[in-house]
Parts: sequence; structure tokens; C-alpha cells
Amino acid sequence: MRHFLSTEDWSRNELQSILDRARELRSSPMGDALKGKSVALMFFNPSLRTRSSFDIGVHQLGGHAIILDAQGQTWPVEFEEGAVMDGGPEEHVKEAARVLSRYADLIAIRCFPKFQDWEAEREDPLITAYAKHATVPVINMETIVHPCQELAMMLALQDRHGDVSGKDFLLTWVPHPKPLNTAVANSAVLMASKMGMNVRMLIPDEVYELDERYMDAAERFCGENNARFSVTTNVEEAYAGAHAVYAKSWGALPFYGAWEGEAPYRAKGAGFMIDDAKMALTDNATVSHCLPMRRNVKIADSVVDSPAFLGIEEAENRLHVQKAMMERLVQDSDG
Amino acid sequence: MRHFLSTEDWSRNELQSILDRARELRSSPMGDALKGKSVALMFFNPSLRTRSSFDIGVHQLGGHAIILDAQGQTWPVEFEEGAVMDGGPEEHVKEAARVLSRYADLIAIRCFPKFQDWEAEREDPLITAYAKHATVPVINMETIVHPCQELAMMLALQDRHGDVSGKDFLLTWVPHPKPLNTAVANSAVLMASKMGMNVRMLIPDEVYELDERYMDAAERFCGENNARFSVTTNVEEAYAGAHAVYAKSWGALPFYGAWEGEAPYRAKGAGFMIDDAKMALTDNATVSHCLPMRRNVKIADSVVDSPAFLGIEEAENRLHVQKAMMERLVQDSDG
Amino acid sequence: MRHFLSTEDWSRNELQSILDRARELRSSPMGDALKGKSVALMFFNPSLRTRSSFDIGVHQLGGHAIILDAQGQTWPVEFEEGAVMDGGPEEHVKEAARVLSRYADLIAIRCFPKFQDWEAEREDPLITAYAKHATVPVINMETIVHPCQELAMMLALQDRHGDVSGKDFLLTWVPHPKPLNTAVANSAVLMASKMGMNVRMLIPDEVYELDERYMDAAERFCGENNARFSVTTNVEEAYAGAHAVYAKSWGALPFYGAWEGEAPYRAKGAGFMIDDAKMALTDNATVSHCLPMRRNVKIADSVVDSPAFLGIEEAENRLHVQKAMMERLVQDSDG
Repeated sequence: MRHFLSTEDWSRNELQSILDRARELRSSPMGDALKGKSVALMFFNPSLRTRSSFDIGVHQLGGHAIILDAQGQTWPVEFEEGAVMDGGPEEHVKEAARVLSRYADLIAIRCFPKFQDWEAEREDPLITAYAKHATVPVINMETIVHPCQELAMMLALQDRHGDVSGKDFLLTWVPHPKPLNTAVANSAVLMASKMGMNVRMLIPDEVYELDERYMDAAERFCGENNARFSVTTNVEEAYAGAHAVYAKSWGALPFYGAWEGEAPYRAKGAGFMIDDAKMALTDNATVSHCLPMRRNVKIADSVVDSPAFLGIEEAENRLHVQKAMMERLVQDSDG
Repeated sequence: MRHFLSTEDWSRNELQSILDRARELRSSPMGDALKGKSVALMFFNPSLRTRSSFDIGVHQLGGHAIILDAQGQTWPVEFEEGAVMDGGPEEHVKEAARVLSRYADLIAIRCFPKFQDWEAEREDPLITAYAKHATVPVINMETIVHPCQELAMMLALQDRHGDVSGKDFLLTWVPHPKPLNTAVANSAVLMASKMGMNVRMLIPDEVYELDERYMDAAERFCGENNARFSVTTNVEEAYAGAHAVYAKSWGALPFYGAWEGEAPYRAKGAGFMIDDAKMALTDNATVSHCLPMRRNVKIADSVVDSPAFLGIEEAENRLHVQKAMMERLVQDSDG
Repeated sequence: MRHFLSTEDWSRNELQSILDRARELRSSPMGDALKGKSVALMFFNPSLRTRSSFDIGVHQLGGHAIILDAQGQTWPVEFEEGAVMDGGPEEHVKEAARVLSRYADLIAIRCFPKFQDWEAEREDPLITAYAKHATVPVINMETIVHPCQELAMMLALQDRHGDVSGKDFLLTWVPHPKPLNTAVANSAVLMASKMGMNVRMLIPDEVYELDERYMDAAERFCGENNARFSVTTNVEEAYAGAHAVYAKSWGALPFYGAWEGEAPYRAKGAGFMIDDAKMALTDNATVSHCLPMRRNVKIADSVVDSPAFLGIEEAENRLHVQKAMMERLVQDSDG
């Protein structure tokens, strides 16, 4: 039995076979891989695309999704081993995960970090605990990485670019009123490097480097694929000749949970919105962003509304790649 | 492709064919018009009957409904064209509507007005924007009109009265502790006039006239059907010889969003609750009200619990008419 | 037509036949007893297991569940006969129950007591009113009793002990930071006594006796089965030779809604957590608790993680017994 917590644990070939299967499901959406099976979707945070695409995808494969909104509708859960549970949580993850596994054949979880203590949160404690105690496969619907989004992004890139090996992928930090989760940024560099692209990161200042786990992994994957990994604060250099631009905003980890001090560094990226002038520096690049996306803050209307924009296709692909992944996980699980 | 935003855009014959199909579905509820299809139900406001009847209706037609509670569970959405999105909304309706259209085959929306600025809200901006950007049909589950309720009301009236042409329909304002949305009142006069009934409105004062768009439309539809449209503040005159009484409470538009000044006008309707004495003035009329309904404030128990009351049948009919409408919209859309 | 509001109204033979059918459904989960049927699940309180197991169970029987979270998503409801509804509630249970009955074939309700006035709340007013006005069967998903949990508990006990007649069942009060609902305690003694077990209750003080309705019923059922019913505050006496230990914490009814005065009595149970020393006094007993359950407050980790613990099986059984009960209720209803 295997979980889908991060693409780090999945080989390039395995991921490619998921993408190939997703293409088949896109043209022939109905199936019976989940016939007689149930999937529990647990949300600790808001969702539009994720809940819609998983719920519909499960149904199209003949299964039944149940949605558990973990705030208010269910019980707070304890994660610590051996805890004397005399505080808030009424239930231990050992029981919650084991019981859900008796009802459902797959458990999918969305749980964003709490922006309190990165040293603790980089361990992704909630989904890790569910994966440890569940007796069915667990799927990550976004925690500190967003592997389903990675697959959707790569499917859209391959659709437009064909084989992406050796193509130049730019992940650019873009402005946003608030410091955000690094999950999609982590995921973008993991997937682009895993699939053989040259990966560049454009950030306003080195404080915006991602956690070393993801920087190191991306560098390692690039190395394995004879591709280049680089980081720059220079806009012209970053965009020059890029084939695929991916936008994301995130908070600088050195100021995690104490964001006041981040403001001067954030100000350095004030001009980082993707616009026509920057796009003119690229090699006719495509542009994308996971949704939701603030228009005219992260990406100018003229770029979003141009044929270069892949965001809608990428969002649609969530449906297809998730179905392919669920199919694979239950096949492995039924073994 | 066609939306169902208001019955104003649908002809009498078209609406009658929906009602006829609803009768068939009432006696034979299972079908496959939505087989392999998904319907997104978006709620910005509470709902009991609407969410139940749509969810069950979609299932009975072989499809799959997903429910999106837009408050808390999903992202706030921007509607303005060209907006620099540096405020609250994380997402533009252009993306939200297009992506939902990739997942779902129909999108149904409930969004009440906010009681802030009628000049803006009478344009029904949210559902109008979704309908503009969605690439699948959009259904109104109550905004500033409530067209599904209209169909349910008319089905109940035809069941009891047969052909309603030339029958006298009374929409009476009734008391309620708070000023309410005019949606059901607008809808009641639109549908009754469209189907050839003589329409009377009983209001406590002329400040309770509905928006001119609906007053004018009702007058026009009555004219096309050689029926009469009239407004009165006289209870006896209003009830005299009526065949169908429909109750609703609403706030006076001149005081929209600044309700303090409405109190003296509202006081004029203090005696407008429907009771046996008023019903005795009618031609053995039926009575109805969309639900929820405050007993002994809007309608006396003795009337609600009499055979004249159609409210339960009308509520049940929501299921049947919505199924007939969804069937029609996907046929047109696939067609 | 019959409701499932409490096991008090169901005979031992009837309950046993539900348990037997649940065993069949456990080994062969898919069915069509609910084909073409809908089940409305109304939640006034949080739920993990109940909503998951009902939703999945309905699907496995070919039906469709709709979930109504009654807080925020739907309208507040009036229960008083003849009320002049000029307060908070927009809708009377007479309409809500009758309309839901037009859409759904079964209505299941979770509504905990409000901890305000036990004399009123012991009448279980909400579910009683729904059962009175609904025209389809109503199922209790926990109010002041929890009959679905009872069935799940008994299925787990029979699986481990075989025929439970004459076996010694101990319901022990256990510590918890807050006073809780008596529902599961009431239910545990009802079911154990109904099925012929000798029932002992261990409580910190006589103020923790359950409502006389349940004490009397348990004593009566024990009498009918030639079994013994007893209450003690002595730990050693309670555990001596027990075959099945069931844990639950609850608030003392004399302090209902005014809990300050309960503290000195609660302190007498400070040592009541189930641990290895207590278990050593039993006749190799099994242990269970409905979930959620606070580890190391109610039951020590060493006991929860031992083979004696039935809590996970009991939780899984919720799925099977509820399916068996729904099957029975629709058969009776259609019959």
C-alpha cells in the first residue's frame, strides 16, 4: 500500500504513467475503478477546485466521496504519542485514522500550515500522522506541498510543449497583500526538476529561498536529468529565453509567524507582477498559476487573457490527474 | 446554450412545457437525463428545501450534485472587470466560472441581495457575472427573483385550479418582524401574469410597490393575455372573489438599506395576516406561501391547516420542476 | 411505519434480527434496499463517524444521502404548537418535517441536549416533533440516547463473547474535563439489560445516577431476563469478575445546566480512569468506549492498545448496523 503525500517519493516514470493515464481519462471520463468504494475528503481549509474536482472525479470512477469539513463539523484531534488528553482535542489521530479507514477506501486531506513554527510545521505533522495510522492510502490535497497541483501543471505543460526535458522553467515570486504558504512553490520546483526541466527561481531577495529540503531536492533532480537549477533576483536574467513561467507568492521563511520584519524584503518584489514587457523577454513562454489568482496584482489582465495562459487548463487537469492517481492507489492497495 | 436566470426570458409555452414535464417526472421520478453529468450547487445563503430538492433531483436523474457553501468553505470572488485585486477577493469570477464549467455541466446559484444599495443590487451582479463567464448553463436558486419557486407555485395552482387563465390571483403583503428580500414577490407576479391570471397586489402603502421592472413586466404580461393588473391598499377589495391568494412579506424599496424610516408604513399592514375572515371574502380561494413561513404572523394556523393551503405541495413541486428544467437545459446545451 | 428513536420501543428479538442482518451486510456490503431512495441526515452537532458511516452506508445500499448541517446552513425551527412566530424561528417543524418527507424516504437527526433544563430536554423535543410530523421514518443519530451506538456496541460484544446472556456488563463513569451528555450511558444500560446481561454501574457518587426513566427501564429489562442490575461507588466491587467494561463520562443531572456545584462530586471519580490494575480485577474483560475518546484521561494507552479494546470494531459496526436498520425501516414503510 502506498500514499501520495509528495511527489518526492514517486519516480519520474511513475509520475509520467499517471499523466498518461490522466490523458486517457480526459477523453473518456467515466470508469469503474472506484465502484463500491468510498473516498473521505477532509478539509481543514477552504477549497473550490479541490473539493469540486475530487468529488466529481470519484463519482466519475463509480465511487462515492464524503466531505468532512474539519472545522466545526468534526472533532479536534490530538497527534502526540502518549498524550494525556485533558486539553482541547477529544480524539486521537490513532482512532480517527483507523476508524475512517474502516469506512473509506481512500483518505484525502487538505491542511495548510498554521504559520506559527516552521520547524514543527515543515514535518507536516497532521497528514504524516494520518498516513502512519490509516490502513488505506492517504492523498495530499495541499499541506506544505501540493502534489496534485504539480501533476495538473505538468499535464498542461506537456500538452503545450510536448516533451519538457531541457526546456527552461521559471518559477517567479509575485506580489500579494499577505505572506502565503510555500506549498505550491515547493511543488512547482519539485515537479519541473523531476521531469527534466532547467529550473530557475526569481525571488526578490534570498530570504525568499524555499526550505532547503525542496531547494536540495530540486537541485538533485536537475542533476539527475543533466538540467540546471539556479536562483536569481534579476528579473531580466530570469525571464530571458524562458519557455514556461509559473507564478506564485509566498512568505519568507526567516520571518515565518513573525511577518512584521518581512516588509522591506517584500518591497523589493513590488515590480514582480507578470506583464507584457516581462513576457517579451521569454522564448514565447506559456504562463500559469494555480488558482485562486489575483488579477493585476500577480499577473496582468493582458497576460491572463492571452493564449499564453494555461491556468484554466491546469485547473481542469486537477480532475484528470487526481482520477488517475486514485485509480493507481486503489490498484496498489487491492494488490 | 441557455441559462435559467428569470422567467422573463422564457415564453409562456416554454414554461408550460416545463410544467407538463414536471408532472411526468412527479409520477415517474427516476431518469437518466443527467447520467455522467455533474451539477454544482453554490449557496451564499441558508437553504433547506433548495439544497435538498436539487441534490435529490440531480441524483434521481442519474447525475451527481456537489454543494459549495460559498461562505467559509470557498474563496471570496471579485466581479469587477479590470480590477486590481489587492483587496479581499482572492479570485475573479472569470476564473471561478470558467473552471467550474470545466468540472460541472450545470451551475446553480443562490445569492440574496445584501440590502445595501438597490440600484446596484437590482442588476443581480453575482449571478449575471457567473452566467456571462460560465460555459455551461446557470440556474437561479434565488437572487432578486426566485424562478424555481414560480414554477413550483404554478404547478400547484394548475393542479388545483386546472387552467388558470382569467382566474384572480392575489399577492398580499403580510407582516414579518424584519424587512425581507422582494425576490418571491417579484416572481409571484411575473409568473401569475405570464400564465394569464388577473393579478392584484395588496400592499400596506404604495412604498411597497415592487421595482418598476417587475411591475411593468407583470402589467405587460397581463396585457398580452387580456388580463387585468391592479394594486390596492384595501383589504376587502383585494380579497373579494379571489381564486388564489399568495402571501409574502418584503421591505419597502424606498427605505432599502436604511430601514428605520420604513416603520410607520409597515405599521399600516399590521392587520394583513391571512385569516379565516379574509378568506371568507374570496371565491373559495387556495392559499400558498413559499417556505419558510411564520405561522400566526403571516398566515393563521386555521388557514395553514385547512385544505385551502397549497404550501406543502408547492414545496414538493420544487423537486419536480427543477428536474424538468435541468433536463431541458442540458438538452439545449448538448443539442 | 415505524421510527427508530430509542431501543426501548424495540423488542429483543427485533434488535437481534437487526444485528444478524448487520453481520450479513458486513461480509457482503453492497445492496439495493435504498435504490431510488434518499435519506436526509440532519446535524445540529459535530460528527465524524456518524456522518461518514451513514453517508457511505446509504450509498452502499444504492441510495442517496443528503447532509443538512442545521447550524447556519438551514433555518431555525419552531416546535411549539400554536406559536405566534414573531421571534427567531422562521419555520415550524410541521412544515419542515412534512416537506423533508416529500423529498426523502428516511430522515436521520442528531441533536444533543442544550444543557439548560433537563425537565424539558428529557422529553427530547426536537426529534419527537420531527417524528410526529414526518410522514417517513425518523432515525436517532444521538439525542438523549444513542441507539445506533447501542447496536454497534452489542454487535462487537457478541462477536467477542458469543451469546452475552448472563455475562457481567460494567458501565463505568470515567473522568473528563467537562460534564457531558448522558446519551451513551443511557443507551449502554438499555442495550446491555435488554440483551440479558447483568448490568453494573460504577459511579463516583449517587448524584451520577442516570434519569429514572433509564434506570427503571434497565432494571425492568434485567428482571425480564432474570439478570441483575446494580449500582455501586466501589471500584473493586464493580470490576470484580466483569466480562465487558464500557466507559463513559457524563454530568450529574442534579447540577444540569448549573455545573459549578458538581465539582466536589466529580472529584470523587478522579481515579476512575480504566487502567491495567483495574482490568486485572475482571474476568479477562473486553473494554470499549464510543468515539471520540480521550486517551490517558478515560482509558490508559496500555488498555486502548491491548487486544481487549473493542472501540475500533464498535465504530466500524456503526456502518453495518445502521444499514441493517435503514433496510428494515424502509421495508416496514413500503410494506
